[in-house]
Amino acid sequence: MIILGVDPGSRLTGWGILEARGPAFTRHVDNGVIALGNGALPARLLKLMNSLEMIVSKYGPNVVAVEGVFTAKNARSALVLGHARGVALLVAAKNSLDVFEYAPAKIKKAIAGSGRAEKFQVQTALQLVLGLPEPAQADAADALAVAFCHASNMCREKILKGVST
Amino acid sequence: MIILGVDPGSRLTGWGILEARGPAFTRHVDNGVIALGNGALPARLLKLMNSLEMIVSKYGPNVVAVEGVFTAKNARSALVLGHARGVALLVAAKNSLDVFEYAPAKIKKAIAGSGRAEKFQVQTALQLVLGLPEPAQADAADALAVAFCHASNMCREKILKGVST
Repeated sequence: MIILGVDPGSRLTGWGILEARGPAFTRHVDNGVIALGNGALPARLLKLMNSLEMIVSKYGPNVVAVEGVFTAKNARSALVLGHARGVALLVAAKNSLDVFEYAPAKIKKAIAGSGRAEKFQVQTALQLVLGLPEPAQADAADALAVAFCHASNMCREKILKGVST
Repeated sequence: MIILGVDPGSRLTGWGILEARGPAFTRHVDNGVIALGNGALPARLLKLMNSLEMIVSKYGPNVVAVEGVFTAKNARSALVLGHARGVALLVAAKNSLDVFEYAPAKIKKAIAGSGRAEKFQVQTALQLVLGLPEPAQADAADALAVAFCHASNMCREKILKGVST
């Protein structure tokens, strides 16, 4: 199973591709960050869609994993995040990919052993577990982490049946 | 100039098409509501994109007008609204349509003469001004109102140069 993890943002969107064969084998395939530039929001969203479509086309994921947003700093930042997240979910639906979302604490626990792990701990744990030559960039690490969560038994036990928000 | 007004929502998205010829002539072309059903959010967003694409293809608008979201009840509702709004902006960018956003009070003032007009006052004013046989459905009325705002001098005076959020 090929898992595409996405960490949507209206400026930077992280992505990560993992291959999972059974609960014990997870292989890092690729990761990166889509820089959407400083243009108007509609143009950035179009760039995001086109970039995600290219990633889907190149790696042929079977599922998409995203962090569930259960809290947000404020309504304004939630709204802007929602724009990018909506495009990511749209690309999944366009390609008939099921979307799974996981709580941030669940993701951190799956990769770093604690739901309260700091960002650098998640990045370090990912580097070790996935055998990365260096820590992934922060947004790409978030995307790899949610993909890893989907691959791991810990998250699969409490799988959410798609996004129903 | 053909204006597509959109009132995005993750369950119901209103739309309205107006034709504006100069500041004094605005003609109602069509309006409606896209019902996105009760499926998973990604599927609803895909339906929204496809429906908006059909509307763009059918009416050939020159611009898209949306309400600017300057307040939101809470972060959760802002996030969900953002998903649908992101898809609307994306469709605009895909079709090379400029997007203009207007403050809710500005829209109400343009159509009903007061920035604090109630929803039914906006609906009634729209019916009178556009010569509709009956009041538009609430979401469609919001879409027609923002399109009318774009058509009117009142809003064009303080035009926002695209969405830069």
